[in-house]
Amino acid sequence: MRKVSVGLIGCGTVGSGVVQIINEQRLAIMERHGVELNLKKIFTRTPCGEKSRVIHEGYPGLFVKSIDEIIEDPQIGIIIETAGGVDFPFEVAIRSIMAGKDLVTANKALLAHKGQEIFNLAGERGVEIGFEASVAGAIPIIRVTSDSLVGGQIQSITGILNGTTNFILTKMSQRQGNFKKILSLAQEKRFAEADPREDISGIDVRNKLVVLARSAFGFNLDPGSIHTEGMGEIIPADFEYAERKLGSTIKLLAHCSRDGIAFVCPTMVPMDSFLASIDDESNGLEICGLNFKKLGFSGPGAGSLPTASSIVADIVQIAKSGFRQKKVKSGKNGFDQVVPFGEVSFDHTLRFIVNDRPGIISDISSALAMEDISIRAVEQNNYRNLPRALPFLVTLHRTEEKRVQAALIEINKLSYMVKPAHVFRSLGQQD
Amino acid sequence: MRKVSVGLIGCGTVGSGVVQIINEQRLAIMERHGVELNLKKIFTRTPCGEKSRVIHEGYPGLFVKSIDEIIEDPQIGIIIETAGGVDFPFEVAIRSIMAGKDLVTANKALLAHKGQEIFNLAGERGVEIGFEASVAGAIPIIRVTSDSLVGGQIQSITGILNGTTNFILTKMSQRQGNFKKILSLAQEKRFAEADPREDISGIDVRNKLVVLARSAFGFNLDPGSIHTEGMGEIIPADFEYAERKLGSTIKLLAHCSRDGIAFVCPTMVPMDSFLASIDDESNGLEICGLNFKKLGFSGPGAGSLPTASSIVADIVQIAKSGFRQKKVKSGKNGFDQVVPFGEVSFDHTLRFIVNDRPGIISDISSALAMEDISIRAVEQNNYRNLPRALPFLVTLHRTEEKRVQAALIEINKLSYMVKPAHVFRSLGQQD
Repeated sequence: MRKVSVGLIGCGTVGSGVVQIINEQRLAIMERHGVELNLKKIFTRTPCGEKSRVIHEGYPGLFVKSIDEIIEDPQIGIIIETAGGVDFPFEVAIRSIMAGKDLVTANKALLAHKGQEIFNLAGERGVEIGFEASVAGAIPIIRVTSDSLVGGQIQSITGILNGTTNFILTKMSQRQGNFKKILSLAQEKRFAEADPREDISGIDVRNKLVVLARSAFGFNLDPGSIHTEGMGEIIPADFEYAERKLGSTIKLLAHCSRDGIAFVCPTMVPMDSFLASIDDESNGLEICGLNFKKLGFSGPGAGSLPTASSIVADIVQIAKSGFRQKKVKSGKNGFDQVVPFGEVSFDHTLRFIVNDRPGIISDISSALAMEDISIRAVEQNNYRNLPRALPFLVTLHRTEEKRVQAALIEINKLSYMVKPAHVFRSLGQQD
Repeated sequence: MRKVSVGLIGCGTVGSGVVQIINEQRLAIMERHGVELNLKKIFTRTPCGEKSRVIHEGYPGLFVKSIDEIIEDPQIGIIIETAGGVDFPFEVAIRSIMAGKDLVTANKALLAHKGQEIFNLAGERGVEIGFEASVAGAIPIIRVTSDSLVGGQIQSITGILNGTTNFILTKMSQRQGNFKKILSLAQEKRFAEADPREDISGIDVRNKLVVLARSAFGFNLDPGSIHTEGMGEIIPADFEYAERKLGSTIKLLAHCSRDGIAFVCPTMVPMDSFLASIDDESNGLEICGLNFKKLGFSGPGAGSLPTASSIVADIVQIAKSGFRQKKVKSGKNGFDQVVPFGEVSFDHTLRFIVNDRPGIISDISSALAMEDISIRAVEQNNYRNLPRALPFLVTLHRTEEKRVQAALIEINKLSYMVKPAHVFRSLGQQD
């Protein structure tokens, strides 16, 4: 039986879930995995928080006043960081590694911005970093991409990695209201954060994509180099068009491929595809590989217990591997290059909102022709009450993003455009 | 860099895929995982087989005349068994383990029937058994259930684990013909085996379920104790009813739960569910857990490269873990008890084929009432050309299997029954 003492830094939604699972699963883990987990100390910066208070009532003796008491405790082998933010967790990470402790974290912002530093130092010091919980909650996608698919030659990963935005898009696709209305509903249900900007803007997804790209391809991507679009511009009419005319729905996708393509943006996906079936707050990922075509993974991407269960799996895994102290050579320091977004090819769909008048299609098609882009179809719903500002779609033959952007500079100048055209992309036969 | 020499026993569909992947991925595995794989020797019982001949042309020097040359080679650390059958692979397994070699196998029949013996001996000898490829091909479900979900408290696993039968059921649901016609189509495409009995009868799925139950719950199940029904009795009209009247489709499911329920049988699943979306020759699994609700996994469940990629992942994993020679105490020898199938509760749907006449519903409902079973609905399609032998459905309120079976003994005696009633089950809210 291996015994391992762990210290927990951060005791909010995820941290309190870790306490609960370690408590409930202790015996089962001893029996099945031969590992005895001892949660020895807890530190929180917000002892008056709702979750901290509940845990404190159950385990008052575990709480310590300073992270030093955890980091300097020679008996503690693994430190779990669930504190949130970047600066404080970074301090925790560096000090833990320097003290020779293995580290388990769910913090994708930390790993996206400071990942290379953390992994390099961990390699030098011979400690393990567990980060299964940082992407897609309970879906064990980190272990799958880093270990289980080693023989499969992963070519690309495409995922729905944010529950809040997927909930909003799902409800919009079900005609339950516009973006603002559904966002407030989600906030009422405490489903979306009070400040949902990281979710809505795609930043949260981008951070997760950086972590995934490291796990699957060994890439060190600069988050700032990744084209990242949120979902704030999507209107209910877009779903009408997507479904009726294109047989598709709209999902906020993260995509990364072995050849260096990486982006986050709302994307048209065929209604009968795996990713279209990922509903509400669920997460889902599709992995393409030379040796297995496609694999699909779905499940809860956030929440206290789903995220905590991935943390506990990391702890057990690290404990079983037995603190091997295998020092590895320091990894790269520079960033890997992302293919400029302008050079990526898509099947584009342009949504225009115009004050209707003759000659519009002619203007748009000439501007597109100037960039050698040919139109696949022009789609316009038959509105019973024709609105003054009329939305319609133009779908294009596969072309590079930069050509479309160049054409749009001209198109957006046209006087009858109510607002700039919105671009939807579809991955099409890329994989 | 860890160097590991491997020996391959069996060089058919899967074995030749292993050779191909090791060859193509050697450098990538060195770079990403620090493991240098050296395929040192190959043995095949059928050197004139199509796949063996191709591999022999490329690597003539690797072929040996006897398994002794592999098992007794002190440089070989890992033996890959892809020979098929049970007796010969069992000999390979026992001799490999006794010789202190780690073993990687895709052989579910071997593991279902001889698993406990193999794992006990491996534990005593301190060698590893990799068997990711034995269930669900490229889907890494063994590692997921045994390691990644340790914190999740898995409660049940429900899966589509046989590509041939799922292909046939999918095509039947698409009205492409009856069972026999689609089976011949699948055989023409070399999709189904020339002798498909293990697939059709559910035996193949049952063997995989035994392996999964061990991985997820540590169970040692006697394959013979698992209720196993194939798909030979399903007729195209069943899909009509399932879809139109019940909003469901029919899948051949394997199900196992922590409380000892285990069975394989055709099952009604709601059209909008994850498992209903697993089409054609794909496999899919849904895992329910206390801490993550539901996770879904889908992908290719068979084939040369998908299966071989899981074998290669096992090899790398074992090589990385560094031959720990951790001897573990011998596991249990007896079988774990399966809940008798009669005591499992379902939402049943009975399909009758009768020579129509008045009083049928009355007879059936009285027989059911004798067993305290109440009818939920009677469903009958409006056939344009009413067939003489009329199929119709009776759906029941949730009840134990044994009550239904008792009622059916009486019902099947009724003179107007063209053949015995067919029972479809639905898991309903069980999880």
